[in-house]
Amino acid sequence: MTRPTPISGFPEWMPPQRMIEQYVLDRIRNTFELYGFAPLETRAVEPLDQLLRKGETSKEVYVLRRLQEAGEGGPGGAAADSADSDALGLHFDLTVPFARFVLENAGKLQFPFRRYQIQKVWRGERPQEGRYREFTQADIDVVDRDTLPFHYEAEMPLVVADALGGLPIPPIRIQVNNRKVCEGFYRGVGISDPEAALRAVDKLDKIGPDRVAQLLMETAGATEAQAKAVLALAEISAGDASFADAVRALGVENPLLDEGLDELVRVVETANEHAPGLLVADLKIARGLDYYTGTVYETQMRGYERFGSICSGGRYDNLASTGAERYPGVGISIGVTRMLGLLFGANALTISRPVPTCVLVAVPTEADRLACDRIARALRQRGIATEVAPAAVKYGKQIRYAERRGIPYVWFPGEPDTVKDIRSGEQMEAEASTWQPPAEDLRPVVKGAS
Amino acid sequence: MTRPTPISGFPEWMPPQRMIEQYVLDRIRNTFELYGFAPLETRAVEPLDQLLRKGETSKEVYVLRRLQEAGEGGPGGAAADSADSDALGLHFDLTVPFARFVLENAGKLQFPFRRYQIQKVWRGERPQEGRYREFTQADIDVVDRDTLPFHYEAEMPLVVADALGGLPIPPIRIQVNNRKVCEGFYRGVGISDPEAALRAVDKLDKIGPDRVAQLLMETAGATEAQAKAVLALAEISAGDASFADAVRALGVENPLLDEGLDELVRVVETANEHAPGLLVADLKIARGLDYYTGTVYETQMRGYERFGSICSGGRYDNLASTGAERYPGVGISIGVTRMLGLLFGANALTISRPVPTCVLVAVPTEADRLACDRIARALRQRGIATEVAPAAVKYGKQIRYAERRGIPYVWFPGEPDTVKDIRSGEQMEAEASTWQPPAEDLRPVVKGAS
Repeated sequence: MTRPTPISGFPEWMPPQRMIEQYVLDRIRNTFELYGFAPLETRAVEPLDQLLRKGETSKEVYVLRRLQEAGEGGPGGAAADSADSDALGLHFDLTVPFARFVLENAGKLQFPFRRYQIQKVWRGERPQEGRYREFTQADIDVVDRDTLPFHYEAEMPLVVADALGGLPIPPIRIQVNNRKVCEGFYRGVGISDPEAALRAVDKLDKIGPDRVAQLLMETAGATEAQAKAVLALAEISAGDASFADAVRALGVENPLLDEGLDELVRVVETANEHAPGLLVADLKIARGLDYYTGTVYETQMRGYERFGSICSGGRYDNLASTGAERYPGVGISIGVTRMLGLLFGANALTISRPVPTCVLVAVPTEADRLACDRIARALRQRGIATEVAPAAVKYGKQIRYAERRGIPYVWFPGEPDTVKDIRSGEQMEAEASTWQPPAEDLRPVVKGAS
Repeated sequence: MTRPTPISGFPEWMPPQRMIEQYVLDRIRNTFELYGFAPLETRAVEPLDQLLRKGETSKEVYVLRRLQEAGEGGPGGAAADSADSDALGLHFDLTVPFARFVLENAGKLQFPFRRYQIQKVWRGERPQEGRYREFTQADIDVVDRDTLPFHYEAEMPLVVADALGGLPIPPIRIQVNNRKVCEGFYRGVGISDPEAALRAVDKLDKIGPDRVAQLLMETAGATEAQAKAVLALAEISAGDASFADAVRALGVENPLLDEGLDELVRVVETANEHAPGLLVADLKIARGLDYYTGTVYETQMRGYERFGSICSGGRYDNLASTGAERYPGVGISIGVTRMLGLLFGANALTISRPVPTCVLVAVPTEADRLACDRIARALRQRGIATEVAPAAVKYGKQIRYAERRGIPYVWFPGEPDTVKDIRSGEQMEAEASTWQPPAEDLRPVVKGAS
């Protein structure tokens, strides 16, 4: 076997980074549960036709086939062809699988159904910084039967603020908009294809206002004056309800616009009561996916704005529906791998040691190994992560092993036992049934860089 | 969209089962860390040629291609053909990816390297009870450079015993054998192809001794007497070191056999010191995979023996090697999905409520919602999972909502606030900044069935 090499877009953290990731995921999960979201995992695969049903993601899907199917389906594995209705693909987000899960199990669920889901997803996009082919997302959604109370749209940012707020990461700012504001405004100024207009505005940060104006005229049938009005709306941004006055000052009248403004004001005011400065109404936020129908969210991390949103979502009314049944929902998704990839890339997160181990029990001779195991067991039973040294070599070598591993304490069996903090050199008598390390040494501690 | 249906082999637990799974995974992970194993996740995909390098799993691999590659590779997606050296497949276990990770990152790791890995794996096998196409495994491995001390082979069962021992599941029994015992014994009786003999013995539980004897003669070149001796060895089983006497009584002499017996005695005695009754030397245990070279493990759960092993592994000397470098290792893998699938199928695990939520804050009128949010926030800040009622309907309806969700407490804002245990009907005055539920109600509790 030759030395293997990484696969572009499929990141693998080393154990210290993975320990930080677990710390972050635990914090997120704990917050989700404090808000009463129940855990769910859906399978990694969905029927290919389901995956291609919505949005502009068809090029990103990984299609699966079993290796032996190549024989069944002829050379080249025709069995996995997209024409095959049984073909399976890896999910590219957690919203589409969740909508499918709700439809499939509606009879067994209590509505409104609150669930969180923390899983890997896959997209065959071109990899770049902060953009991967395999990555972890942490989603919450609330769905209800027939109608979904609006107040859940105001709840989503609060959960994210609590989940990320306690972490040693740069401050986040959640940008919100409301599809009703955009669509109502576009209709109010007389644009006939609001969806095309939205798709053009979605490119604003990427291509700038001039080319968006051009796109609006080319694809959404806008006049120059209409394009100008659309861009004026997109410029409005405020951390309080004053954005609504700025919109009304543009002089466009439309009932859907009024409804959207009322909702957006409520989202902003709820957030300001809970976490001032967290949220900003930013009317250029469009979100590419077609299925959003109300509030939409994006999130920037201070200092990393150029890499795009680390947490996005919105309200969807028509994603989960089958004939007469409708399950409107709202959700938000933390891009954990993107967020951590950016922070790791900037060395902005550290951990106090690269192993869980707090104590290494030194082994005087191999004949003492069972006795050393007993010491380790006594420490573990009280929650102290402990290893026994690999070999009964000279103590100096065993201490250097602990140093290399980043283990802070070495335990020496004897009469009495002693334990040494190998960072300070301090050594003291100790009993495995009672000794306790300082609280900050019990588990590895995650810190920000500065 | 028509109502979707499940995909055979891809299980999806409902939230209560998922909560139980998380409880089990947390327990396993915590135990792994107490033993100083550091966390690792490898990507879900490996180069197809790596996946097909060892073992008899070629038929089980899921091959991936990006949907747009169909165009590039010609009709039928030839780009994903197994002849393509860039083709990727989903990993079918966590050992092969781990061996690859060690080779790839050897320069950055401290040896012996202890890691745990809890991830999904995929196999395109025919689904049946306890056997899935997508399932979660929880692995620990220790690898070292050049040589690996034997004592790690004795450590593996102890970690599993601690991880599963505290769970409300039936008792487990770990069956161990040692490849050196089998190979030495087979060589000692004069069988020329010990690997073929091992593969035949591996089928003992499935096809019975007569057909194994036949296989031994047909595939391993054994005489009738040799086949009889092989079966006599496979019959030996004991919870203590007496198995070694039973083997020696068969009168076969071989140095590899002696070495294997010494090691196996040490594994059994270490386990008996730590957890009497946990482990049995069972000389029919063969493990199908070719890469094992020392101790091998399988695990049965009482009452579920017929479904096979829920936790397996062994020592491997040659899995991770590149030219001059060798990284021998030993590992064991808990089949979490199989174990839970069997227990869920028998209704042998329950949870005290189907949601994390401990308290539902009732909403008197929609104008009070912000005040209700404040109560919820105060409770959450002290670790009490809290939801706010979906709508300001009559209190009776809000209480019935809590009942349906399985939420034990309803909080009524007022002067003063009151909180009601809706199971007992008991209601008392309470303050959101101080009230504490009984410890057993704070989080859902997982219990065995009986």
